[in-house]
Formats: sequence, structure tokens, C-alpha cells
Amino acid sequence: MALIVQKFGGTSVGSVERIKNVARRVAKWKAAGHDLVVVPSAMSGETNRLIALAKEVQPHCDPRELDVVASTGEQVTIGLLAMALMELGLKAKSYTGWQVRVLTDSAFTKSRIISIEDEHIKSDLKAGYVVVVAGFQGVDAKGNITTLGRGGSDTSAVALATALRADECQIYTDVDGVYTTDPRLVPEARRLRTVTFEEMLELAGAGSKVLQIRSVEFAGKYKVPTRVLSSLTDPALPVAEEGQAGTLITFEEDPHMAMEKAVISGVAFQRDEAKITVKDVPDRPGVAYAILGPIADAHIDVDVIVQNVGHDGMTDMTFTVHRNDYTKAMKILKEQVQPHLKFRELSGDERIAKVSIVGMGMRSHAGIAAQMFRTLAEEGINIQMISTSEIKITVVIEEKYTELAVRVLHKAFELDQA
Amino acid sequence: MALIVQKFGGTSVGSVERIKNVARRVAKWKAAGHDLVVVPSAMSGETNRLIALAKEVQPHCDPRELDVVASTGEQVTIGLLAMALMELGLKAKSYTGWQVRVLTDSAFTKSRIISIEDEHIKSDLKAGYVVVVAGFQGVDAKGNITTLGRGGSDTSAVALATALRADECQIYTDVDGVYTTDPRLVPEARRLRTVTFEEMLELAGAGSKVLQIRSVEFAGKYKVPTRVLSSLTDPALPVAEEGQAGTLITFEEDPHMAMEKAVISGVAFQRDEAKITVKDVPDRPGVAYAILGPIADAHIDVDVIVQNVGHDGMTDMTFTVHRNDYTKAMKILKEQVQPHLKFRELSGDERIAKVSIVGMGMRSHAGIAAQMFRTLAEEGINIQMISTSEIKITVVIEEKYTELAVRVLHKAFELDQA
Repeated sequence: MALIVQKFGGTSVGSVERIKNVARRVAKWKAAGHDLVVVPSAMSGETNRLIALAKEVQPHCDPRELDVVASTGEQVTIGLLAMALMELGLKAKSYTGWQVRVLTDSAFTKSRIISIEDEHIKSDLKAGYVVVVAGFQGVDAKGNITTLGRGGSDTSAVALATALRADECQIYTDVDGVYTTDPRLVPEARRLRTVTFEEMLELAGAGSKVLQIRSVEFAGKYKVPTRVLSSLTDPALPVAEEGQAGTLITFEEDPHMAMEKAVISGVAFQRDEAKITVKDVPDRPGVAYAILGPIADAHIDVDVIVQNVGHDGMTDMTFTVHRNDYTKAMKILKEQVQPHLKFRELSGDERIAKVSIVGMGMRSHAGIAAQMFRTLAEEGINIQMISTSEIKITVVIEEKYTELAVRVLHKAFELDQA
Repeated sequence: MALIVQKFGGTSVGSVERIKNVARRVAKWKAAGHDLVVVPSAMSGETNRLIALAKEVQPHCDPRELDVVASTGEQVTIGLLAMALMELGLKAKSYTGWQVRVLTDSAFTKSRIISIEDEHIKSDLKAGYVVVVAGFQGVDAKGNITTLGRGGSDTSAVALATALRADECQIYTDVDGVYTTDPRLVPEARRLRTVTFEEMLELAGAGSKVLQIRSVEFAGKYKVPTRVLSSLTDPALPVAEEGQAGTLITFEEDPHMAMEKAVISGVAFQRDEAKITVKDVPDRPGVAYAILGPIADAHIDVDVIVQNVGHDGMTDMTFTVHRNDYTKAMKILKEQVQPHLKFRELSGDERIAKVSIVGMGMRSHAGIAAQMFRTLAEEGINIQMISTSEIKITVVIEEKYTELAVRVLHKAFELDQA
């Protein structure tokens, strides 16, 4: 009936028993009449083991050879999963990235998919096979083995679903969907039945690591219906029920659903952040690059960036970095940037957190920002920075207020109510 | 100067430290001006681990999927070895079987090599790279991953040496060459500086497991000079010295060498054998097949087969099997063969051993067999079966005499004297 791509993460295939469980789950979908393409990750711990082995040989691993080594993890799993499916009486066949072939660029260890040939898979599906494809890996135009980087199996699954025009891409993981916020922090947090891909992107960027962000981009670009659901449920759960579980990432706003939908979909947060302020720099073209260029050269990711309106020909710039990069970033600014830029002051704070509210509804509802700021003010939480996008408002606050801020915002936007 | 293919077994690459040692050894040869193609096995224990994992999933593994899983062991090693070479400042590049490509038939788990493309390797060698190729694996015409079976890395190395017209194929292993007999049994056993490939074949078949027999066949067919040498020697040993170490397998008899050469090259033996005699079977065409067909169908390897001249329209057949297969073979003969063939008697002995003398020289020297039989008779060792080939004489004796037989034959043919 439908063509479904199912992706299973490392924990779901972490042992022989779990691989057999995955096979039972896949068999159930097959028995319901669907065509299945299954994308397993490497068994949990395996990729780390292989990378550690490589680093022991060559501390700064050659990226081409690292991919040769690291890609074996998924190759083992596809063989084992295909065997487990056969053991249940199904026809099954495995494919590595190059066998499919999943053509990528040559950026070893972080390649991007260029195209996927669907010929073999389609004829196997037609012949009744469950097709098992290695995630995380591909091959470049010269026949070198490549990998897509951490979490790349999500991207493989979504890209395969796109290439095969699948009806749905199901990402089985160890959480049962996307939540309004982290349930460990707010017990009232609710699972979202649907989330738009734009919201998903903003949530991922704001610290909710359910799906690798590149796979969400891919799903959004090609409008692949993608469902995040739990691999920890009973494998015998009826297909009709499991097919409605988890969270579905949607693309076009159904007007009916929009009416039902809350204005805000979720509250995301990220601790372990630090902020750095460069004060009184000459307000002229090229300043932002002069400050952030050397930071980027040192491979430090910069997140929220705020630059205020200038005064007296001078301006201030503030940005956040991961706490681990704080000392390094400050050193670069002092030693490399200051001699040229002659800014007047440098300050920083290692104890901050980011809290964001995300929702498609805020585009059509006024006063959302005001409500957020008032809610925080009522709790005496000072807002240090503000950054906004179409569907997200992020504030930087003192770290110790993180939990409090998340809880009060979750309640204020009625996310605890269905 | 020369193009050399070097093969390193699983023990030689069994740990990161050992892989680094292999890299040092290769680097030494490269520094001496040679072009190197290196074929490593999987790290010791790895292939067994992968096969055990597969059997846990599917007791009777699907052979295609088993090869997908098992071939990852060598893929890990080629990446690690290439990195180790780079860490020493060399240019190095790894290739899997399909990347080379090593084209095989589709007999999964025991494929045979059809052809090897040498294009990539040759241009890499020209550009100064050490090329590292995964042993044991290939790809069939349809793009399926295949493996060559146990010990297949030896075959890979010899086949690569053939395809590349290498000057020498060096098989590094945990013994330092081919001996006149097992030194654990006869302390006077000497290492042979050269051995012909025919002798090597007979020695391998008679229980001296230095090289996988198929690699020897390959070397013989294509006349690839192949040297067996130890990977346990100091990696810093000068190339001039290491290049003369071990045992060289030769192909054409150098008349000068033949003069120097002993008549007999070695004494081989195999314990754990059993013999089975089928007595008084009708002496008519098809009898041998009627007896041995069902045995072969049960995947029992039959070794020495002797059939005596018939008498009164009847004949006897005796053959040897591995001791583990003895009970099964007897059962097949009683239950499947007897009802049709109506032989008169079935007997067997589980406590026998095979002892062979091997040597090119026996073709041109009369009386070798007689000397062997006299030597054994003088020690009171009864010969139960005799089987001969051009360059080998095998006798089956009571197992408890194995050591004694090997020792006295080693001495009688002056194998202890250089």
C-alpha cells in the first residue's frame, strides 16, 4: 500500500536481541502490506570504538581513511538486520552506501548527499524484498567511501525517502516524539502530535536534539513527511496505532489544524553557554567580520549575535559561544583582534543560558514577545540579550534561572493543556 | 626498483602497536626504493567475532549477508594501516576489494578471483603512494560484496602480485618459513631456503599449514615468486637481510640448485584422522561414487582413497576422513549406502595418522619408497595404507607411532643436514 522508510538509531540496534526486535517491528509493517526500506545506524558504541582505534593510530586522522574505518559500523548492522529479517521468513537484502549508490561530495567525515540511485531498491521492492540500506555513508564521484557526520543516518533516511518518493519517513529513536519542552524539567510537558518543519528547525537549533538538524533541513526542502517515534514501544503494537504515534513533521499549514493549534509549540533551552561583549568598537563596515572572522577560523561556533544601534560613531557587539570555547575566544579577541580593532572594552559571562519559545502561530499573533518578557519579569528574571526570528524568540538569561524560566513560560503559553 | 606485494596476517595486525610495527616494516622497504602494495588481514579475532555475531542472529547465515558483515574486518585494518603509514610521513591510500576492483564469481563466502583491475593502484604507485588493499574480499559482477574464504588474504596477495606483475609476493606470517618437518616434533628440523610450488602444494595438503592451499595454486599457475617470512623479526632488520629470509617458493628447477637440493624436501604429517573400509562390494562401474557420493553430500572431506584390485567380482575400498566426521560417515554408510550397495562388511579405525615424504627429487631417484618403507619397518611400524603421487608418498599408520615415524624418516633422508 504505502512505501515507508524506517530509520533505527544505534541504541535500537545495540545488541543481537534488539536487532531481532527491530526485525519483528519491520515484519509487522511488511505484513500490513507496506513496502519497507530500513536504515539502521551502527550498533551503539561501535562508531566511537572505531574512531578511538583510528585516533590511537593517527591522532589527527586522515579524513579519507577515517571514513573507510568508521563506515564499517553500519555495514555490519545492515548484514545482521537483513539476516534477522530472513530468520523471520521475509525476503531481505542489504545495501552499503556505494552499492545503492548514495553519491556525495568529497568532504570526508561530513559529506553532503548529491543524489541517490533508486534503480536497485525499486526493483527489489517490486520483487517483495525488505531493503536494508546503511545509513551515515556514501561514495564520492571517484569511488571513495564518505560519511555524513554524526547523526548522518537521519539524513540518509530522509534523503532515501525523498529519492524513492516514499509516503513517510519514520525515525525510530529513544524518545517518543517532540515535546513542548524537556519533560525532565517540566513534568507537564506534552508530546506534539504535529510540528512544522520550520518549528522543528528552530527547536533543534535551540537545543532540542531529537533529529539531526541537517535531516530536518532535508525533509523541509523536499517536503518528506517525517515522523519521530519511539523504538521502545512493544514491537507487537498494531500498525494502525503505531502509525499515529510520535510526532509528525508537517509542511503546509492545514487551515483546520492551524485553528486547533496553539500559538506556541514549545519552549527550548540550552545551558553551558557563555556570552562575550566587545564594547565601543568603531561603527564602520567590516567590523562584524573583524571580530567574528578570527573566532570562526578557530572553529568556534558562534550562536546568538546582537549588535546594538551605534552611538557617537561607536557600537557594541555581544555574542554567545559554547562554554568550553569561552577562554579560547577571549584570548583570540585580546591577542588577535584588539591590536587592529582597538575596541575599548571586553567583557564576558560564563554562566548564562538561552531560552526560546518557538511557534508558527507567533507570525499571526501580536504580543507574544511582550507576554514572554512580562512572564520573565514577574519572576524577577533579568533578560540580558534578545534575538528574534520569524517563529522564535530567544532570550539570554543568568543560568541559574533556566528551569524557572522554562517552567513559567511553558505554563504562560498553556503548553500543558491539550 | 622492485614492486613488492606484502601480506600481513591477523596476528601481525592484531593491535594498534602491531599495526604501527607493520607500518615501520613497510616504511623500511619503501625507503630502500621499492614500490609497495600491502595486503593486511583483519585484526586477529575480528573475523571470528563478526561471524559469531552473525550466527547469533541467523544460525544458518545467508551467505551474501555474511560476506557483507565479515568483510568489514579487513576494511577496518586497511584504514588503520594507511593512517599508520601516514603517521610515519609516507603517502598512503587504502582500497577495499570493490574499490580496486577485485572481481570474483558469486560464490559467497568462498568466491574465486576472476580478474583484478590494476589502473588505480598503478597510478597511485607512480605518484609515490604505498597502496593498502583489503585482503579476503572482492565484488561480483552485480556489485555484491564477496569473500574468498578462510586464509583468503594469502590468495588476494598472490593474485594482486600476478595482476601487477610484481617482482615478489612476501607473505609475512608467524612462522619464519617452511621447514623440513614440524620443529616441535623434531628439533633438528631445518628451514628450507627454497621449495618448489609443487612440493609446497603437497606439504600443505599433508598438514603443513603455512600458506592457504589456494594461494599456492595461484602462485604456481601464474609463477609469482612468493616468499614466506616471519613478521616477528625486528622491523629494523636491513632490507638486504630480510629479503633473503624465510622460504622462497620457486617454479622452475634451476639445474644448479637441483644438484644441491636434497631428494626429499620435507616430512609432513596429520593426526586426528580416521579410516573406514568397505569390504566386498561388487566390483562394477559406479561403485566409488555410490560410496563416496553420500559422504560428499554430507560435506565430509575424504582424503586418502585406496581401492585394491578386485577378486571374485568383488573389491574393497578404504578411505580416510577427519576424526570428527568418523561417526557421521559410518552412519551414512550403514543407513544410506548399505541398503543399495549390499557390501558385506564395514570396518573402521579412529586412531590413525598420515605421514608423508615430499620432494621433487623423488621423480628422478629410484628407491625412495623402498627406503621409506624399510625405515618404518625397522622401527616396527606397520603400514596400513599407501598412496603415492609424483612427488609424495603417504602412509597411514597407527596414531601412536606418529612422532617416531616423523623422526626416523627425517633422519633417514638426511633432512637434518644442510
